[in-house]
Amino acid sequence: MSGWLCIAGLGPGDEAMLTPAVGQALADATDVLGYIPYVARVAARPGLRLHPSDNREELDRACAALALATQGARVVLVSSGDPGVFAMAAAVFEAMEGREDWQALDVRVLPGITAMLAAAARAGAPLGHDFCAINLSDNLKPWALIEKRVRAAAGTDMAMAFYNPRSASRPHTFEQVLQVLRETCEPTRLLVFARAVSTPHEHLLSVPLCDARPEMADMRTLVIVGSSTTRRVGRFVYTPRSAS
Amino acid sequence: MSGWLCIAGLGPGDEAMLTPAVGQALADATDVLGYIPYVARVAARPGLRLHPSDNREELDRACAALALATQGARVVLVSSGDPGVFAMAAAVFEAMEGREDWQALDVRVLPGITAMLAAAARAGAPLGHDFCAINLSDNLKPWALIEKRVRAAAGTDMAMAFYNPRSASRPHTFEQVLQVLRETCEPTRLLVFARAVSTPHEHLLSVPLCDARPEMADMRTLVIVGSSTTRRVGRFVYTPRSAS
Repeated sequence: MSGWLCIAGLGPGDEAMLTPAVGQALADATDVLGYIPYVARVAARPGLRLHPSDNREELDRACAALALATQGARVVLVSSGDPGVFAMAAAVFEAMEGREDWQALDVRVLPGITAMLAAAARAGAPLGHDFCAINLSDNLKPWALIEKRVRAAAGTDMAMAFYNPRSASRPHTFEQVLQVLRETCEPTRLLVFARAVSTPHEHLLSVPLCDARPEMADMRTLVIVGSSTTRRVGRFVYTPRSAS
Repeated sequence: MSGWLCIAGLGPGDEAMLTPAVGQALADATDVLGYIPYVARVAARPGLRLHPSDNREELDRACAALALATQGARVVLVSSGDPGVFAMAAAVFEAMEGREDWQALDVRVLPGITAMLAAAARAGAPLGHDFCAINLSDNLKPWALIEKRVRAAAGTDMAMAFYNPRSASRPHTFEQVLQVLRETCEPTRLLVFARAVSTPHEHLLSVPLCDARPEMADMRTLVIVGSSTTRRVGRFVYTPRSAS
């Protein structure tokens, strides 16, 4: 029997947001690889080998998954949310460079509910008009590029979804981003801080820019910045479909 | 029994990409509303009233859904993909403006796999780095704003996902967008045309900008424009996680 690799998104946390396609891949798998807390979300069963690994080992993990599939294993590489959005799919394709044997494998990407969709849904519809998704981690790109993109999005009045806004190792990036927003947006601009949506640790907060503080975000928070038209209606935050 | 309204995403087409949360809402519903082809995806059963309606009737449909929930119905308003991305959620919140009775209702948004995630997964990982989602329909915004946003995204080297790229009523917008891309990106820039992903009509095409033609897109196509780093590996297209 020949091996395969599925790069699968587990969604934001709640089992009810994991697609049947991903559930089926997990049921058919012999091996599951991923970052420790994501592999912990996969139920153990006889015949299934779990391979949790640490953060910042993405390329090694991708190579291990491809090597296992080459040996005939049925491998699922799990990401939280969607594997194609700031997650493992790109790492797998990077690992394939120069390896024709790996490029010839049966490799599929199975999408998932990415954090910004789950966060937006809980808040209302803040991404109801054009928007950008920007990873604020400066591990893989310079701060200058992050700043340029935030200014471009603000300058053309697109909403923004920020992934990985703040971590212990780089506590200042998000404060710098807030400063850029203060320079480019009005003080009443609405922000949504959505932490661990659909898990027992879910916490949702929406505040105007003038009240936003860096410590409202951590690595489990997805931050949405509305456009100039984003507004409250009742307990919801939404961006109207029209723009002028 | 009190009514509720779920604004739910059916995903791109394949049942295996519809979340269990949405499946449960449909199972509990008394009434399902939505655009004709989306309501057609919901299985009929005794006790379920289906209310298909035409395109461009979004606000009327939202009002009808809220009115039914007020009367005690358990209502699911369906969108293709995700309801919060260029779909029905924003229309419902617009309809709630000035209506405190509707704002007090039990209203939830249930996310779905939006077209760009499904398209990206089929192609590889073209949205593996920062990107924008832009609706090319100029029904609800002027062409000048679309152009400004495409230029801003190209100028800061973000990938782009275009929703509603081309329709019979506005055949020229997408040609204009391609012209903006030709002015701002190199001719080898990769584009993905992903039509009706996960349905029997699925068609995927990836070409360099110099070979892109307007007729490669229609209203069922999601177009992804890579960043300058987006590349092919084997049969896949992906954007590396690093940028400089």
